[in-house]
Amino acid sequence: MQLLQTTDKDFSVKFQTLVSDRREATVDVSGTVREILADVKVRGDAAVKDYTSRFDRYNPQSLHLSETFIAEQAAQCSADVKAALELAAERITAFHQKQLPQDIGYTDTVGVKLGLNWVALSQVGIYVPGGRASYPSSLLMNALPAKIAGVERIVMTVPMPRGEINPAVLAAAQVAGVTEIYGIGGAQAIAALAYGTESIAPVDKIVGPGNAYVAEAKRQVFGIVGIDSIAGPSEILVVADSQNNPDWIAWDLLSQAEHDPSAQSILITDSEIFAQQVIAAVEQILTNLATTEVARASWQNHAAVILVSDLAQSIPLLNQLAPEHVELCVDNPQLLANQIKCAGSVFLGRYTPEAIGDYLGGPNHVLPTARSARFASGLSVYDFLKRITYLECNKQALQTLGKAAVTLAEAEGLPAHAGSVSVRLQ
Amino acid sequence: MQLLQTTDKDFSVKFQTLVSDRREATVDVSGTVREILADVKVRGDAAVKDYTSRFDRYNPQSLHLSETFIAEQAAQCSADVKAALELAAERITAFHQKQLPQDIGYTDTVGVKLGLNWVALSQVGIYVPGGRASYPSSLLMNALPAKIAGVERIVMTVPMPRGEINPAVLAAAQVAGVTEIYGIGGAQAIAALAYGTESIAPVDKIVGPGNAYVAEAKRQVFGIVGIDSIAGPSEILVVADSQNNPDWIAWDLLSQAEHDPSAQSILITDSEIFAQQVIAAVEQILTNLATTEVARASWQNHAAVILVSDLAQSIPLLNQLAPEHVELCVDNPQLLANQIKCAGSVFLGRYTPEAIGDYLGGPNHVLPTARSARFASGLSVYDFLKRITYLECNKQALQTLGKAAVTLAEAEGLPAHAGSVSVRLQ
Repeated sequence: MQLLQTTDKDFSVKFQTLVSDRREATVDVSGTVREILADVKVRGDAAVKDYTSRFDRYNPQSLHLSETFIAEQAAQCSADVKAALELAAERITAFHQKQLPQDIGYTDTVGVKLGLNWVALSQVGIYVPGGRASYPSSLLMNALPAKIAGVERIVMTVPMPRGEINPAVLAAAQVAGVTEIYGIGGAQAIAALAYGTESIAPVDKIVGPGNAYVAEAKRQVFGIVGIDSIAGPSEILVVADSQNNPDWIAWDLLSQAEHDPSAQSILITDSEIFAQQVIAAVEQILTNLATTEVARASWQNHAAVILVSDLAQSIPLLNQLAPEHVELCVDNPQLLANQIKCAGSVFLGRYTPEAIGDYLGGPNHVLPTARSARFASGLSVYDFLKRITYLECNKQALQTLGKAAVTLAEAEGLPAHAGSVSVRLQ
Repeated sequence: MQLLQTTDKDFSVKFQTLVSDRREATVDVSGTVREILADVKVRGDAAVKDYTSRFDRYNPQSLHLSETFIAEQAAQCSADVKAALELAAERITAFHQKQLPQDIGYTDTVGVKLGLNWVALSQVGIYVPGGRASYPSSLLMNALPAKIAGVERIVMTVPMPRGEINPAVLAAAQVAGVTEIYGIGGAQAIAALAYGTESIAPVDKIVGPGNAYVAEAKRQVFGIVGIDSIAGPSEILVVADSQNNPDWIAWDLLSQAEHDPSAQSILITDSEIFAQQVIAAVEQILTNLATTEVARASWQNHAAVILVSDLAQSIPLLNQLAPEHVELCVDNPQLLANQIKCAGSVFLGRYTPEAIGDYLGGPNHVLPTARSARFASGLSVYDFLKRITYLECNKQALQTLGKAAVTLAEAEGLPAHAGSVSVRLQ
């Protein structure tokens, strides 16, 4: 953790270092991934089964999980968790349904009919990690927008180390309306989704988080299928005045730190005393936290506390950092929120810990990281829709517009473009 | 050109070959591009000037084009072309303004305030190719959606071989509201836009077509900045009955073929006689077309004519091909159009040659290629907007939702997530 003050002589240098700090692992797995993809492309199911046996020690007859198996496993999910997943799904659905856009269509003054139709993707793949990072909440956040968009085929892959699976993940899949599940993971799962195999029909887009192999596999199949963004380590920026309970803010900072040793938690405050209280509270919590190893690594190596003389100064800093999550723990959070231009999602006031948004606030928790909130957005219904535009001229409209099109085509040296218009004007 | 009939025994094999035909060049320029990017990142303007001198034989004192220079050059654009560009800009603007989306915001029954705000990107770069492929229409199609979205800084780069520039491109830049222009191109221009140099401030997203070096450079800087999709060779699929003038359809097919030897033109028709008439018309036009060399290569190597017994059969074929452009040259084009799920843009009826949409129909001409219309869409105002979601719980709302969030956090093994909520419930 480093403590910066805007009044420090070298503040802007140190802040720029923070802004340009790239926290992603740099292990190059591209060669291995390329081999796995090529193998699955050629050998299909046989290759997928080989890798599943080797990496996951799992040798099923069929990669496809039967409805009976899913129902049996999902039934082992506790009633509490099931109910919480249902509440989450309900709230996520309500928010994402409001994103459904309207088609555009009109006839202009020249008589040209034109428009834009939103069309759902036909089939998508949702990658769900196995083991420790197997989060049912992520499954809801990835699958529900697809379902709401109208995607007919929602295929999920989840690795099953030694045949084991988290019952909560299968319960979430049922709640989210997943239509097919395969017990596979890694680059071999991405390959199966992109190219298809004898038993798995290919999809048009793949979304969902995964390890370095999965991320690299998604990069390599991009173009053959669509992908969501490649998620980096999580980030939170908390803007807090001294009227907050330091304990609350410490928990918020650690809620991101516990995700990943490369996660980043930043506090911006106008009170040095409060800053020290939060730092002390973090240390106190770390002494007795099940995830302390990860959280401490993140806190020590990547956290920052920035002292400003006025919280208004937080805005330009925030817009440069473009963090995944922002908390505004102040009395009139809207005043600051209105000035935010770069952030994934914003949590307003003293009673909105970011974790509530991770589970059941309603907005999506798949958000841009690594400063990509400068140009990217969180996952949404729009990611599962396409836009098809259309244009219809009648004879008269073409007469009106044709000459200008011919002029431009000729200026661009494209005579067949010009000819396709002028031949209709004669 | 190959002629297929759906009644052929081997039709489905041949059609799948057509579907999976990847027409992109496979020259690997990634090493060269990586070096140029690294050099510009370190040496800034000096490196950009070196490459500009070497590749473009252009050695300006300043890379930035002055307003005086732009005005002087733009003034050389003919009045006809200028007027056509203005008409095009007006029509493109009218259509894209209708895309501007509405923010979402509401308070739900639990008392949670939540929503989604659309925010324009701050600064974008538009790459414009130089030389033969220097198309003022592409500049309009790339820059106007950015301007309409509300992007404040629209930076254009255009290579100037031996100091020369197409006056129409600068006239288009004026019409489109470009705010800065630099006379540079290639991977060095992409590097300057992504990393910034002493004289060029970096942007957040780069769009626009370019050669293999530019495309590879965009791939490599993706993540540091946003990019649009990587455009492949152009494609047109024409569905036409025998009531069309074969000449008109031949011109339409050639209007894409003349773009690139790798472009693809496909005709689907239900009349063998008509098919032969179109093929003869293509050959006739090719005997006297300024772009015949390119168009003939495309036609010979990549074109297809598909005979169906009923035009309704064109729809499943079309949705598998997912072409960039579709023309429906039939009497009730809407009947077919309603069934299209995968296409970039659709042109309806006998008086809507695709070229009218290239210039001034209104919809964007930057469209998904290489079957990516299965998951991707044409350029739009949305590409220059971000979505920032927000959430605000009050004390009571957190009490209502908190327990379920704690349940899920604990189920996922994330105690700090749980703690950040439960500490506020006490």
